[in-house]
Amino acid sequence: MLTAPLTTEAVAAVGWNVLREDVSLPCAVLYEERLQHNLTWMQRFIEEYGVKLAPHGKTTMAPKLFARQIAGGAWGITLATAQQVQAAYTHGVRRVLMMNQLVGRQNMEIVSRLLEDAHFDFYCLVDSAAQIEQLGTFFLAKGQRVQVLLEVGVEDGRAGVRSEAQVAEVLEALGRWKNTLELRGVELFEGLLKDEAAVRGFLGRAVEVMRRLVADGHLAAGKAILTGAGSAWYDVVADVFTDAGFGDAVDIVLRPGCYLTHDIGAYREAQERILAANPVARKLRAGLLPAQHIWSYVQSVPEAGRGILGMGKRDAAFDAGLPEPALHYRPGEDAPRMAPAHWKLAKMMDQHAYLDIQRGDDIQPGDMIACDVSHPCLTFDKWRTLLVVNAHYDVIDLVETYF
Amino acid sequence: MLTAPLTTEAVAAVGWNVLREDVSLPCAVLYEERLQHNLTWMQRFIEEYGVKLAPHGKTTMAPKLFARQIAGGAWGITLATAQQVQAAYTHGVRRVLMMNQLVGRQNMEIVSRLLEDAHFDFYCLVDSAAQIEQLGTFFLAKGQRVQVLLEVGVEDGRAGVRSEAQVAEVLEALGRWKNTLELRGVELFEGLLKDEAAVRGFLGRAVEVMRRLVADGHLAAGKAILTGAGSAWYDVVADVFTDAGFGDAVDIVLRPGCYLTHDIGAYREAQERILAANPVARKLRAGLLPAQHIWSYVQSVPEAGRGILGMGKRDAAFDAGLPEPALHYRPGEDAPRMAPAHWKLAKMMDQHAYLDIQRGDDIQPGDMIACDVSHPCLTFDKWRTLLVVNAHYDVIDLVETYF
Repeated sequence: MLTAPLTTEAVAAVGWNVLREDVSLPCAVLYEERLQHNLTWMQRFIEEYGVKLAPHGKTTMAPKLFARQIAGGAWGITLATAQQVQAAYTHGVRRVLMMNQLVGRQNMEIVSRLLEDAHFDFYCLVDSAAQIEQLGTFFLAKGQRVQVLLEVGVEDGRAGVRSEAQVAEVLEALGRWKNTLELRGVELFEGLLKDEAAVRGFLGRAVEVMRRLVADGHLAAGKAILTGAGSAWYDVVADVFTDAGFGDAVDIVLRPGCYLTHDIGAYREAQERILAANPVARKLRAGLLPAQHIWSYVQSVPEAGRGILGMGKRDAAFDAGLPEPALHYRPGEDAPRMAPAHWKLAKMMDQHAYLDIQRGDDIQPGDMIACDVSHPCLTFDKWRTLLVVNAHYDVIDLVETYF
Repeated sequence: MLTAPLTTEAVAAVGWNVLREDVSLPCAVLYEERLQHNLTWMQRFIEEYGVKLAPHGKTTMAPKLFARQIAGGAWGITLATAQQVQAAYTHGVRRVLMMNQLVGRQNMEIVSRLLEDAHFDFYCLVDSAAQIEQLGTFFLAKGQRVQVLLEVGVEDGRAGVRSEAQVAEVLEALGRWKNTLELRGVELFEGLLKDEAAVRGFLGRAVEVMRRLVADGHLAAGKAILTGAGSAWYDVVADVFTDAGFGDAVDIVLRPGCYLTHDIGAYREAQERILAANPVARKLRAGLLPAQHIWSYVQSVPEAGRGILGMGKRDAAFDAGLPEPALHYRPGEDAPRMAPAHWKLAKMMDQHAYLDIQRGDDIQPGDMIACDVSHPCLTFDKWRTLLVVNAHYDVIDLVETYF
């Protein structure tokens, strides 16, 4: 537990090493080489398609990682809430897609304060007349203008207009706030859908709505935006949106967030589909790599078939598959071994995990276990500080989160 | 998002009110009157039984709440990890039951540094010879003594000795470290068990082991400790442990953590059993009250049967039942209404919740919803700051967490 942030240089100078037990476990580790690989991979993917990347920052809420994404070519950062926008702005982010409706007085106040910076390029969503009235009323009183995107949603989905009538309602409401709310384009989140046909259908509808907004002159003057894509279908989004042929007048923006650390659950599965199906991804070969481990100690081996790890629901996501043991290290040994394939987490409690082992396995209290995780978003938010390590497990940087 | 902690006085002076939209939602709210009721209720329960209370601090990891628990009569604070112990010590806690095996070099270093304070009264668990050897070796080298409790566990459970052979192994190992590790008593956690007969059986076994340690002279000189109890079976633990008749030589210590905010899930169910079955609890009448809400905005009502709330898995526990809408407030109105009984959360995503509503319900974007939660531990850890409010929803204090 650190009381003040250290600079990257200062961290490296301390000379911590995870295998030498220089840090208290449990801890969350990011592997530098894999992070860099994933950063580069996604940037090349984006460039091949000629689209823009605004990685979803809610995944990590780590300004140091935002800075690397932007330095690597990202166009902006996507965020979910006004609180997140404030944290990102405070740490230097100057283009934000807040891909939600901006609702509530203090949330609008936060954004209003940030908009006093003329270099802050901010977008949020609208999907109903009631919400537009609230937004317009607030920002008219402030004498400020806000850029908005129309959210398109699916039946039984999250927010966003479902019907033509709702589109018409939103456009009519926006018509009343022309000097306050600038309509810039269309947004969707396709990640709720389970199969490619449904995703393509949904994307096609968003393209149609966008085409209508362009044709009927509903968009504010200047660049327009068409944006979609979580971490599972970004290839299909790139494909459909670039095929739509909007040309230079429309920026196509993809917003995956989990590619940076990847995982061994839902996103590994999604990536396998992408590598099999998408020609650009195939060309890039080696896909995304899981870049995050939770390290913990074996705290007890109370039965022949069970170990107890000192990590739990407070340390890693558990909503999309439990963490999976990857490495096994006994302090003093040269290097970690691969964890045996039959070692599985059977259950997690708040601060403990049940590890299924077999009688006779070489495991004892004090051994260190590194677990891969499924669902980075709900793993990052467990940690205020993550350790970045090199291939020798030297701690070369700390990443702080701002949830 | 606050950049520096405010004193209680300073917070009250700011004059925020939740209903007046002075704070950004989502936010976590603690109700002062209910907190105080729960604090008093549990303290009276403990006093009626003549036992000691060491509330599990891992639930809240909020030093301000630890201080209130201690001021209210708690004997110590229970914690789960060395990192938590350090955070509690830094904020003034001087008696800690770390009810886990202390494993790993840096974790032992943390405790060793704190033990340099002769006023720091610390206990941790042992359950195997291997772990005892590591603990003894480390603290012998430091020239320090550590107080330990023998953890008794159940088959297919968490850590802790299952068999007589394991008890003998632990006692033999402790015999080799008599000047370093002081055995002070017996610990168990009965919260994994699902029915009262099993709990009573497990408690009976712990009492037997304790009796043997006393009779055979295995305990270090001075006060001994017999401790158990999560938030679901503390009444049965109090009952069995006080019935064992150890008298003044043994401190019986209960460790519930969730009573402070209570909940509307597993702990409400447990409390109903306790109020029905336990004569002391019955005498105290009005039981524990849920004291925590997550407030969020209705962000969209995209379908007649669905609202979308701006809160999700990042804001509240979801592993033991989803949050339940309790209050509905439209800014400008006099007071919140009860949320209709048919409003239920159907699903939570990272930052959103699906609210089941019915066609024609009076609900719109910008409305505020307060949700009760199930499982306080995995709700507190989502927040760095929680708001304490009075009956008028004035923010009268902030509680910071140190996860």
